Amino acid sequence: MPKIIVEVMPKADLLDPSGKAVAGALQRKGHSEISNVRIGKRIELHYENTPTEKDLENAKQIAADFLSNGVIEDVVNVTVEN
Amino acid sequence: MPKIIVEVMPKADLLDPSGKAVAGALQRKGHSEISNVRIGKRIELHYENTPTEKDLENAKQIAADFLSNGVIEDVVNVTVEN
Repeated sequence: MPKIIVEVMPKADLLDPSGKAVAGALQRKGHSEISNVRIGKRIELHYENTPTEKDLENAKQIAADFLSNGVIEDVVNVTVEN
Repeated sequence: MPKIIVEVMPKADLLDPSGKAVAGALQRKGHSEISNVRIGKRIELHYENTPTEKDLENAKQIAADFLSNGVIEDVVNVTVEN
């Protein structure tokens, strides 16, 4: 199934409490090499046919307008995966 | 900041109600080319230094044991990003 993958992360200067909690837990388990953790979203858009350039443009627009909240999140990647 | 990216998705044969809701909304907005949407997690592990092969092995273990629930989720990707 052809897909477009949209990756959304909380903005770097915002707190990410769930990420902080995971980072703390990993450090308590001895993974001191991991300094921080941030948790975002990975959204798969499924297509019947291989996405065209136009589909990718549309997906970037959808990612910015609809799948992310620009106040608190950044779209870090929009890629086709066949 | 060097990172390891862990991507976790709901298993293919499980319902994903938030993904279904987004797919329905996109179709109502006229994006009929998008047949389905699934929403998973993108987790960034931050490292002070470039992750070694050993760090990547550890991260795969952490992803399977700790960052995902094997009953309902699959780890789809664990990759180094410098």
